[in-house]
Order: sequence, then structure tokens, then C-alpha cells
Amino acid sequence: MPRKAATPAPPRPSKGERTRDQLVETIVALVNERPLDDIRIADICAPHGLAAGAFYFHFKGKDDAFEAIGIEAVTRLYAPVLAAPPAADFFSECVEILTQFYRAAIERRSEVRAIFMILNARRHAGVRDAWLAVRRQLQQRLAARIAVERGTTGTGAFASANVTAHYLLCGLERFYDDVFFLTIDADLPAEAANFDVFVRQQARLWSVAATGPTQ
Amino acid sequence: MPRKAATPAPPRPSKGERTRDQLVETIVALVNERPLDDIRIADICAPHGLAAGAFYFHFKGKDDAFEAIGIEAVTRLYAPVLAAPPAADFFSECVEILTQFYRAAIERRSEVRAIFMILNARRHAGVRDAWLAVRRQLQQRLAARIAVERGTTGTGAFASANVTAHYLLCGLERFYDDVFFLTIDADLPAEAANFDVFVRQQARLWSVAATGPTQ
Repeated sequence: MPRKAATPAPPRPSKGERTRDQLVETIVALVNERPLDDIRIADICAPHGLAAGAFYFHFKGKDDAFEAIGIEAVTRLYAPVLAAPPAADFFSECVEILTQFYRAAIERRSEVRAIFMILNARRHAGVRDAWLAVRRQLQQRLAARIAVERGTTGTGAFASANVTAHYLLCGLERFYDDVFFLTIDADLPAEAANFDVFVRQQARLWSVAATGPTQ
Repeated sequence: MPRKAATPAPPRPSKGERTRDQLVETIVALVNERPLDDIRIADICAPHGLAAGAFYFHFKGKDDAFEAIGIEAVTRLYAPVLAAPPAADFFSECVEILTQFYRAAIERRSEVRAIFMILNARRHAGVRDAWLAVRRQLQQRLAARIAVERGTTGTGAFASANVTAHYLLCGLERFYDDVFFLTIDADLPAEAANFDVFVRQQARLWSVAATGPTQ
């Protein structure tokens, strides 16, 4: 295999960016621990020995911070899923998407929980909008692929594939519930050491659901 | 239409049953308000002027009460859905199931939230088991109906219909999330005064998803 060209190292984050990253990390951890209303700005700044001014340099207030962090977490969670490379056949396409989805949800578990808690506070509509926007992108990609797989074209065929794609994504979102309402910590596929088997089972289910029993 | 035979009135609940009902009602309300760990037995008994003994007559302790109430709420939520009468055609069958489902989820909104909060506490596996059991019943009913609709028979056909039924139910469960993470209070179909239109739209989606684009 040809060697990959060396990619330039990403620019080193500035001091301001590092401070913001520290604040974000602490807020995500706190949101996993207690209700949003019980989180004080002092709690956010204390672990890094920062003054409240550092918080207010980056955020207008707590609600602004929760909204910004929720939107960023949604974006980070879906970025690798949306960037999954297209595959030649439908089953492999499903494997690509599902691998990225489950990996992101498992690795970013505390961010998934933070998104839930922020949505649960019911005053951060921007987070819901951000999630709906990335969900729409993923659904459209999947619907287009399903229409191709079914060998159908035209508006009606896309609309029908879109319905199927919607329900498949509903299935994925149940996994978030499991990450959040974690009665099943030990069953998470990454921890069961059979991640690939799990993903291929799910991809098989998607294929059956998308192309029906006749194929 | 023939007049229905008069059904006998249900037996009047005993004093003990009425006390238990009062306790359950208060617990559901409290669970909607604050974390489970912040609910004290005194808070549960106070609204009805009961002593702690009344609580302990009915429940072994708080965790026993949460588990029992969660299981009962799940059962009550799904009972009308499972009892939806079979219909002659698939679309009408979907309308029957969906009508009962959405009506129950809307009318029992505080119980839906209580179930979420109790599951969220991660120490009431019985509630999850109860939910999985009723879900399984509903999925089997739906899968059998989808296989008939597709005109296919045999184990393979049922397995494939079962996959479809699973994803359709995942779609329904997203509605619970909306009831719980209620950024959308005003959009609930019952309140939008177009409940029937909403249900028929959903039934149309189910029909397309179940029977595919070719029918």
C-alpha cells in the first residue's frame, strides 16, 4: 500500500481555546452528575483554578454555555457518522454508517448524557434544532442509498425510501436511550469485545428492513 | 345498532386500595418534580394526612414502591394498545393501534415521565423487563399482521416482518421521548385538535414502511 502523505499537525490551541476546552470538559462532567440548576459557575471554574471572569470571557451565562455545549456535542457526535465513506454495496454502506454511529455514541457517552440532560431542561431549543439538522442529513443520505438499492427512481420512490430511513434512524436513537438510561452498561458492544459482530447484525437488520423480504 | 348490554359497575375499592391509590398518585407527581433520591416518605404521606405506617403497609420501602409503580404504569400504558380490536385491512389495523398508543401516551403523560425517571435511576430492572414484555407482545401482533399483508408465510417471512415491526415500534417510542423531553408541549396532537389526522398520517407511514413502495 502506498504510504500516506504526512498531514500537517493541527495548529496548537491558543491559551484561550485551552481554557474554553477545560470549561467545556468540566461542564459536561457536572451535567452528568447533577441537575443543571444545581451547577454553579464557581463549580465550573474551581477544578482549573480559574476565576469567574474566565467563564464570562467565553460564555454569556450558564444557559448560553449549556446551549453552546449541547450544539457542539451534537455536531461532534454526528461528524464521523456523516463522514463515513460511501461503500459499493448497501450492506457495506450500512456497516460504515453503523460503525461510526455506535463508536461515537460509546466513546462520547458522557456527551450523549449531557445532550439528554440539556434537552431535558426544556429551554435550549437550539440543541434540538442542531440535532434535527444532522439527523436530516443522515436520513437523506440513507434514503438516497435505499432508493438505489431498491432500483427505484423518482419522487415517490425517494419519499418511500425516506420513510424507511426515518424508522431505521429511530432504531439507532434507541441506542442513545440505552447509553443514557444505562441499565445495560455491561452489554455495550464495545465492552462485550464483539463490536464488529454487533454492527454486522445491525447492518443485516437494516438491509432486511430496507429492501424487504423478497430480496 | 343494538344496544350494549349493561356492564356491572366495578366493585368499589376498599379503604386500603383507596389509600394505596392516593400514595401512588402522590409518588407519580413527586417523581415528575424532583430526583428519586430527594423524595422522602414523609413527602409521600403528607398530602393525605397519612402516617408512615400507611406507606409501609403497602410497600417495603421507597425502592419497592418505585419498582411497583413503574411496572403498573407500563402495564396501564400498554393495556389499551394491546386491546385494540383487530381490523379488516392493514391501514385500519394501524389506525387502531396508533390511536390507542398515542391516546395512552398523552393521557398518561405524567406516568410516562415517571417511567423514564424510574428507569433513569438504574436500579429497577423489573420496570425495564415489564416494558420489554409488553413491547414483545405488540411487536408479535404487528409482525403477524405485516406478514399477512405482504401475502408471505413461513418462518423467514415472519422474521422479516418482525424486523419491520421492531423499527415501527422504535418510531413510536420516539414519541415517548417527546412526551418526556417536552420541548413540544403545544405540538402534541391531542392539543392541536387534529388527533385523527395525525394518527392517519402515522398509519400511512406505517403502511408504506411495512408493505414497501411497490404496493
